[in-house]
Amino acid sequence: MEIVRKIDKKPYDRLSHVSNCTFGPLNEPMIWVKPKEIVEIETHDRFGDIVKIGKELKEIVKEGLLRFVNPVTGPIYIEEAKPGDTLIVEILDIRIPEIGVITASPDSGALKGLVEISEIKTKFLKIRKGKVVYETSKGSKVEIPVKPFIGTIGVSPEIETISTITPGRHGGNMDCPDICPRNKLYLPVFREGALFSLGNVHAVQGDGKICGTALEVSAHIKLKFDLIRDKKVDWPRVESPEEIMTICSDKPLEDAAKLAFMELIKWMKSDYNFGEVDAYTLLSLAAKLNITQMVNPLYTVTAKISKQYLQ
Amino acid sequence: MEIVRKIDKKPYDRLSHVSNCTFGPLNEPMIWVKPKEIVEIETHDRFGDIVKIGKELKEIVKEGLLRFVNPVTGPIYIEEAKPGDTLIVEILDIRIPEIGVITASPDSGALKGLVEISEIKTKFLKIRKGKVVYETSKGSKVEIPVKPFIGTIGVSPEIETISTITPGRHGGNMDCPDICPRNKLYLPVFREGALFSLGNVHAVQGDGKICGTALEVSAHIKLKFDLIRDKKVDWPRVESPEEIMTICSDKPLEDAAKLAFMELIKWMKSDYNFGEVDAYTLLSLAAKLNITQMVNPLYTVTAKISKQYLQ
Amino acid sequence: MEIVRKIDKKPYDRLSHVSNCTFGPLNEPMIWVKPKEIVEIETHDRFGDIVKIGKELKEIVKEGLLRFVNPVTGPIYIEEAKPGDTLIVEILDIRIPEIGVITASPDSGALKGLVEISEIKTKFLKIRKGKVVYETSKGSKVEIPVKPFIGTIGVSPEIETISTITPGRHGGNMDCPDICPRNKLYLPVFREGALFSLGNVHAVQGDGKICGTALEVSAHIKLKFDLIRDKKVDWPRVESPEEIMTICSDKPLEDAAKLAFMELIKWMKSDYNFGEVDAYTLLSLAAKLNITQMVNPLYTVTAKISKQYLQ
Amino acid sequence: MEIVRKIDKKPYDRLSHVSNCTFGPLNEPMIWVKPKEIVEIETHDRFGDIVKIGKELKEIVKEGLLRFVNPVTGPIYIEEAKPGDTLIVEILDIRIPEIGVITASPDSGALKGLVEISEIKTKFLKIRKGKVVYETSKGSKVEIPVKPFIGTIGVSPEIETISTITPGRHGGNMDCPDICPRNKLYLPVFREGALFSLGNVHAVQGDGKICGTALEVSAHIKLKFDLIRDKKVDWPRVESPEEIMTICSDKPLEDAAKLAFMELIKWMKSDYNFGEVDAYTLLSLAAKLNITQMVNPLYTVTAKISKQYLQ
Repeated sequence: MEIVRKIDKKPYDRLSHVSNCTFGPLNEPMIWVKPKEIVEIETHDRFGDIVKIGKELKEIVKEGLLRFVNPVTGPIYIEEAKPGDTLIVEILDIRIPEIGVITASPDSGALKGLVEISEIKTKFLKIRKGKVVYETSKGSKVEIPVKPFIGTIGVSPEIETISTITPGRHGGNMDCPDICPRNKLYLPVFREGALFSLGNVHAVQGDGKICGTALEVSAHIKLKFDLIRDKKVDWPRVESPEEIMTICSDKPLEDAAKLAFMELIKWMKSDYNFGEVDAYTLLSLAAKLNITQMVNPLYTVTAKISKQYLQ
Repeated sequence: MEIVRKIDKKPYDRLSHVSNCTFGPLNEPMIWVKPKEIVEIETHDRFGDIVKIGKELKEIVKEGLLRFVNPVTGPIYIEEAKPGDTLIVEILDIRIPEIGVITASPDSGALKGLVEISEIKTKFLKIRKGKVVYETSKGSKVEIPVKPFIGTIGVSPEIETISTITPGRHGGNMDCPDICPRNKLYLPVFREGALFSLGNVHAVQGDGKICGTALEVSAHIKLKFDLIRDKKVDWPRVESPEEIMTICSDKPLEDAAKLAFMELIKWMKSDYNFGEVDAYTLLSLAAKLNITQMVNPLYTVTAKISKQYLQ
Repeated sequence: MEIVRKIDKKPYDRLSHVSNCTFGPLNEPMIWVKPKEIVEIETHDRFGDIVKIGKELKEIVKEGLLRFVNPVTGPIYIEEAKPGDTLIVEILDIRIPEIGVITASPDSGALKGLVEISEIKTKFLKIRKGKVVYETSKGSKVEIPVKPFIGTIGVSPEIETISTITPGRHGGNMDCPDICPRNKLYLPVFREGALFSLGNVHAVQGDGKICGTALEVSAHIKLKFDLIRDKKVDWPRVESPEEIMTICSDKPLEDAAKLAFMELIKWMKSDYNFGEVDAYTLLSLAAKLNITQMVNPLYTVTAKISKQYLQ
Repeated sequence: MEIVRKIDKKPYDRLSHVSNCTFGPLNEPMIWVKPKEIVEIETHDRFGDIVKIGKELKEIVKEGLLRFVNPVTGPIYIEEAKPGDTLIVEILDIRIPEIGVITASPDSGALKGLVEISEIKTKFLKIRKGKVVYETSKGSKVEIPVKPFIGTIGVSPEIETISTITPGRHGGNMDCPDICPRNKLYLPVFREGALFSLGNVHAVQGDGKICGTALEVSAHIKLKFDLIRDKKVDWPRVESPEEIMTICSDKPLEDAAKLAFMELIKWMKSDYNFGEVDAYTLLSLAAKLNITQMVNPLYTVTAKISKQYLQ
């Protein structure tokens, strides 16, 4: 019988924001977990469970209750993890509630200054039988199939403490829809115990996450950790049953894409016996490139290649 | 019985390069076609039918035979088309030969200066039963399903004459895999007769076309033209049975993406009764964003939304 | 006694816009000039001598009189100039009138979407004793010393025809304040006769030309042409008595800067006996980098090094 | 008689790297200082006093002695400084030794992948009578006047801990030559006591700092602190006797420039009675824009306007 460790979310308040809203070496671990243990973790939505608060975002902002967004649950100390290892995070399950929220604001989003929007707009959307019910302000409705994934997930950087709104080598706010059940995420370990945190689950998200948010939900997540010892990935990677993928973040967007392709070529060389130019031309014929978000402080792309081309 | 006009490609030589390798108002039409006529057009591959020449690209370059690439067939004068109209190009069929070529060079490609490559590499790949046989330099083989599309397609700009290696509002070298059979391409008309040209068919292409080329083939293309009178799109658009899509080109890549999303929002407002903020949030939940190429002088993206969300 | 050829500007009307507002191989030369002849050229201001028209820009736009801006005088056919040569343009004198115009618009400028501006604003400014009298809308006045230079100057590209609002390897709309009396401009020759044109003089301009225009004036310009035969610069260069400078245009801005620095290193290697790494470190200590404009379709930078460091 | 507090640099070793090489709220203050006190501070050079170590950089890197560069002296706790204030740092004097170092590396610098450089190059340069003696590898010498300034200077961010190689709103590695004697730097205060640190003095630097380093020196710096209470600048600002300047950092470079111009317009509006459009057009005629560096994780620009245009 599988043993499961249960980890509740921390209360979200202003006093605890530094550890709730950052990845960093000085944040105190909230729990110790062994490799191969299965854990069940509760996470807040991006706005600290705004759905339960039941208020429009603009009111919450006005009341000063939301200076820091994107609270994460953690840090979780992974026993035996040490700098130079790779942390494997196997995503077993994500359960989400029957409601989520999407917001658009004049001050953020990829189309800031282009789309006409006078104040923060908040839409609470229902989730029914695996579908989000999207309703326009004119009242027409369409259904979008849910595809839940973990938006913010990562480990402590080596010396920096980074806001949970920013993605990077340590993971963080990558908003990558492939960090979902069935898949494994690989993260570099920079500090003893890795200091892993996660949160910001999205029920569904379009490419680019262009208005700045997706369908933001709280969640109940089931994970299993493992380690690759003494071998560190340089950037986060994902493996699904069908594909290998690299996730890189930078600005401008083409620099993130170049990084992700170079990481994918490195992976094809080290694990699949490819020469550099062969990998380059094969990717030019068969790669997939996903713009996961272009709204966070750095932009994130996922470069992918099907395993059927790697035999 | 359908009447079909047949249009052969022009000989590819240095003397005719200006009209072969540009889109512009001063290029002489090679043929006059009426709206709703079906035309069958032959096109060169990107290197002026290198496959028939049967030489490595580096030799051709050395001999000075390839100062201008991407020859197109055209201009085709579309009768009745006038500035302010939209040209509809319905792609009925693309037939390709059993061989194509992909090249990688130290001086071009998205990973220039990053990938180690000492000289131009040329791979001639066979196409068998709808699959490209990709062979690595170590001799292992994989098969990639073909998905032919028109890489370079467009009309004359208003006053500029633009190289066929550059994409823009006039179309051009967009390298968009959705310009393929079953789909309709919409192009703005800037000059009397539109002055339409096309070429540079790819048998298959990965996102980003990162090594600078895809599987380059000559082709036999069947098209039908039509016009929307007195209503001009601002950038090329594509409609498939399932999706509407906008294709924009700029640098850096995020600017191309922003343009494409703004064009998509305009389309959703004008034809599908959406408010601006509703369109913005729906796209944040359900848009697809395809990086078609990040190697041409401007980068191209395609922003898409499923028609099932537009009812 | 010096012989001077006088060249008047062409009438600026809608019918002649293609040749007035582009650089291209198919534009008809208006005059033939020999190397070492001195020429005196009249140029329109950016808006086709708006000052004489005496109307606000927004009215002119409304009347449809200004679809193409930046008219140039030319093409001037430089006898003996052939592809592969470098054209030297020595700027002897620029005389400007006592009035100029600066405009700001909601649809253009580097701060588009950031600065609040509801409609096109036009300021006619007086020039007195070498100073521009700048008056705010609140009535306070300051004086800015004039420093006239040629904003748009270049030759025909090889096969493309490029709008006079765009800069590039052929020169064009570089907006570089160092293209001024005392200095020599070097341009690559792509076509027989070079097909040189110029216009768009600015009485004074700040770095970046951020609102989209500078102080736009008509002008009377005195030049002398010369040729370097069989040796072509790759991008425009300027030499002043004190400095050598390279002018490159691209997007994003850092790519323009990288190009300009690489061109400067090439110049230091070929003409001043520098090794590549020596040039690199010396520039890191002593280069000047001028953002001439970040509002045209490509952005332009000038990289400079003092001749006193090149002995 | 002025009272001066003397602050020595901390030993630079691997164990103390987190506080030596970051700006952050959890770093322990090393000294408490009152507003208006004059302080004298010792700083390391960028490589932890490499000049004293007397080894080539590549050897130091090989020995693993240099995983973190850019050590700073601090944090200095400024008494009475509180979130929402502005810290004024008046730079009274910078004294530097008679030797500095510049390095170039294949893995960094603006021209990475473009300039041919096979391994880390180290040049130790002498400083004599206010001039740097630059010697090429071929033995020729030129003299460059020194102009010492503080490359890295800033306060603690609100919740993040940021490496001293990165610039931002908190200051940090801005590499701005205007942070020099005679000038005042304004920094936003995010935490009680501001937690001010500084280091990384450059004897002289070209625009862009393109090879990744300038002439790196240790230094002895004299400063006076002061506070503007309850009024916070959004980004670092500098005031010289002649100019006001804003310093912003972002990628791509044009985004940093846009931020800096917007901050300058805000300053002109709040303190000099300008309307937004007046400020915009005046800057388009008379602004200076300095690219201080394009080699750090974010790029830094300084936008400037002469005070004589602000009366």
